[in-house]
Amino acid sequence: MQPPLNQSLLGKPLVEELQTPALILDLELFEKNLSEMAQHCQKHGIALRPHTKTHKSVAIAKLQLAAGAVGICCAKLGEAEIMGTAGIDSILLTSPVVAKAGMRRLMQLNEIVEELMVVVDDRANAEALNELARTSGAVVRIVLDLDPGLHRTGVLPGDSALALARFIHDADGLEFAGLQSYAGHLMHVESYAERRLKSHAVMDMLAEFQHRLGSMNIPCPLVTGGGTGTYDIDAERGVLTELQAGSYLFMDRQYNEVLDPGDHSLGFDTSLFVQMTVISAGSPGLATTDAGFKCFATDADSPLLVGTDIAARYFFFGDEQGGLSFDKQETIEIGSTLRAITPHCDPTFNLFDYVHAIRGDTLEAIWTIDARGCVA
Amino acid sequence: MQPPLNQSLLGKPLVEELQTPALILDLELFEKNLSEMAQHCQKHGIALRPHTKTHKSVAIAKLQLAAGAVGICCAKLGEAEIMGTAGIDSILLTSPVVAKAGMRRLMQLNEIVEELMVVVDDRANAEALNELARTSGAVVRIVLDLDPGLHRTGVLPGDSALALARFIHDADGLEFAGLQSYAGHLMHVESYAERRLKSHAVMDMLAEFQHRLGSMNIPCPLVTGGGTGTYDIDAERGVLTELQAGSYLFMDRQYNEVLDPGDHSLGFDTSLFVQMTVISAGSPGLATTDAGFKCFATDADSPLLVGTDIAARYFFFGDEQGGLSFDKQETIEIGSTLRAITPHCDPTFNLFDYVHAIRGDTLEAIWTIDARGCVA
Repeated sequence: MQPPLNQSLLGKPLVEELQTPALILDLELFEKNLSEMAQHCQKHGIALRPHTKTHKSVAIAKLQLAAGAVGICCAKLGEAEIMGTAGIDSILLTSPVVAKAGMRRLMQLNEIVEELMVVVDDRANAEALNELARTSGAVVRIVLDLDPGLHRTGVLPGDSALALARFIHDADGLEFAGLQSYAGHLMHVESYAERRLKSHAVMDMLAEFQHRLGSMNIPCPLVTGGGTGTYDIDAERGVLTELQAGSYLFMDRQYNEVLDPGDHSLGFDTSLFVQMTVISAGSPGLATTDAGFKCFATDADSPLLVGTDIAARYFFFGDEQGGLSFDKQETIEIGSTLRAITPHCDPTFNLFDYVHAIRGDTLEAIWTIDARGCVA
Repeated sequence: MQPPLNQSLLGKPLVEELQTPALILDLELFEKNLSEMAQHCQKHGIALRPHTKTHKSVAIAKLQLAAGAVGICCAKLGEAEIMGTAGIDSILLTSPVVAKAGMRRLMQLNEIVEELMVVVDDRANAEALNELARTSGAVVRIVLDLDPGLHRTGVLPGDSALALARFIHDADGLEFAGLQSYAGHLMHVESYAERRLKSHAVMDMLAEFQHRLGSMNIPCPLVTGGGTGTYDIDAERGVLTELQAGSYLFMDRQYNEVLDPGDHSLGFDTSLFVQMTVISAGSPGLATTDAGFKCFATDADSPLLVGTDIAARYFFFGDEQGGLSFDKQETIEIGSTLRAITPHCDPTFNLFDYVHAIRGDTLEAIWTIDARGCVA
């Protein structure tokens, strides 16, 4: 990893002189989002356990904790290792860890993180973790993952799920910490009413399952799930104890377009941008920037230009470049800088080693994206 | 950047035990591709200057040089800095460097790389580089970028391009090294006949421009361009002196599908894969792997599974996971490993910090993707 190119500009009001492409975070809007979500959770009596898969940055995770988060979520073991080593003491690993070497790494991490939890959705996996935990001498906290209908991970909430909960609860090496259900397929449902109805159905499923656990004398202190797209719905049923949102800090084109025709939009501002430079402008109505597939996640829509003097549209122009298309009467100068809203914030963060935190026109900090690429 | 997770498996015949997701390179096929392209270029009297934007790895670049490449191409200054610092002494920077700080970095790099060349397509940029070169006391080698109709970078081959060549040739601080024209839009044209016809037209344009330079007494020793999709056409007109191919070493789904109905396919084998692990399998006909948007470039098609016992199709299942869809009568065990051909090799390399070089079932080396993320 190269040292941050733009370090010499720290503290200087010269943000347009950044070496680009650069990932930019507008601190004013970021702090507004940070505080908005903290207040929302406090008001509605739900704990916040933000997903650090979004930003993979220790500095940002620590700001979330300082703003009241009870701990963090990590998607992958490698991410949790980075966050745990940096001193974060409550981590929920939201994907199953099934490989032998992975489970051994989990046991090691369990020794350094005060409260480490991992989801399980399979009996053989629970048995293997129990064996390893008994050998290691430290109990492993397990969250049972329930499938909310997305069918990505999780068991369906039936008898075999109850039997798995029973096994986890009774196993010497394991502690049954609670339930997870993440309804990823509901986050971008455009209609607020439909999103709400379907989210409530997931919550009702969780409540019913929790009730059945209760009648089996299995305490379930934790129910974790939800996300940015449903944050204002997730607490309504009083079922979730923790909210796993991540994107709320940054927003992206995909989330910004979750906008009900009845004008019910998510309550966060876009704070994340990619700054780029025009490197070529040889044809009328067309210019080329230095940011292509390697600077924006390409799983969603195109980047959306902001703050340009003329109406221009960004289009992907290969691995290394972006195209700008605009009226042939207009010109965009070579060397000029532009910013775009990212199509999808999580995988865009994962392309960069640093994020540049700006306040107004001043580069205030450069934060390392510590767990970038830690996909294993 | 974390240390390579799989280091403890080096030299061991246990490649299925790799911590996944992991980028895998089959050395036997990789070496076949390396040698095939080297022989092709030798046979057709064209030099090979492979594009290291594809792999961003010093180790792989040095293997290409050892196999006869005359130097390398880099897409970005950051990449060229990594390669130059690692001792590679002939580098062509294939995108214009227009920002002030970038041009200063270029002057510094010019002091450590024996033969550094950079493309220019704009008079003001040429003037600025000339000023800096005069101040630095070292001549900067310039390659004039001609637009082959892609309109991404380059000047159209008319009088103003000739005037720019004249300026570069005459400027004290600059050396006119030659011409570049990269026809990226022709690389994936399915019909061989159409690809050939259009490539020849680009070559004829270059020959005509070179002829006009000659009549202006501007020597043009270098004509660089071409790529994997046209490698077997690029030398035919005898115009290009250098071939810029990159993907030939690895191939990907996108290039594999450049297959003429007349059965004229590109002469390289797929050597690059992502290895992943099944982490959940709760629903009939469906399983979930640990590799999603953060492990495969998503600008092209989906990853293509290889070597599975049952017919299964990979689909993207979010940032962190992939889905496997298969016949409901079949089962895929949790913990089993799978490999997939990447949709597009270049931006997939750019997601990982390491590539695992295997021979048969043995992990022979772990190569660092040194310039990963060096987009600026």
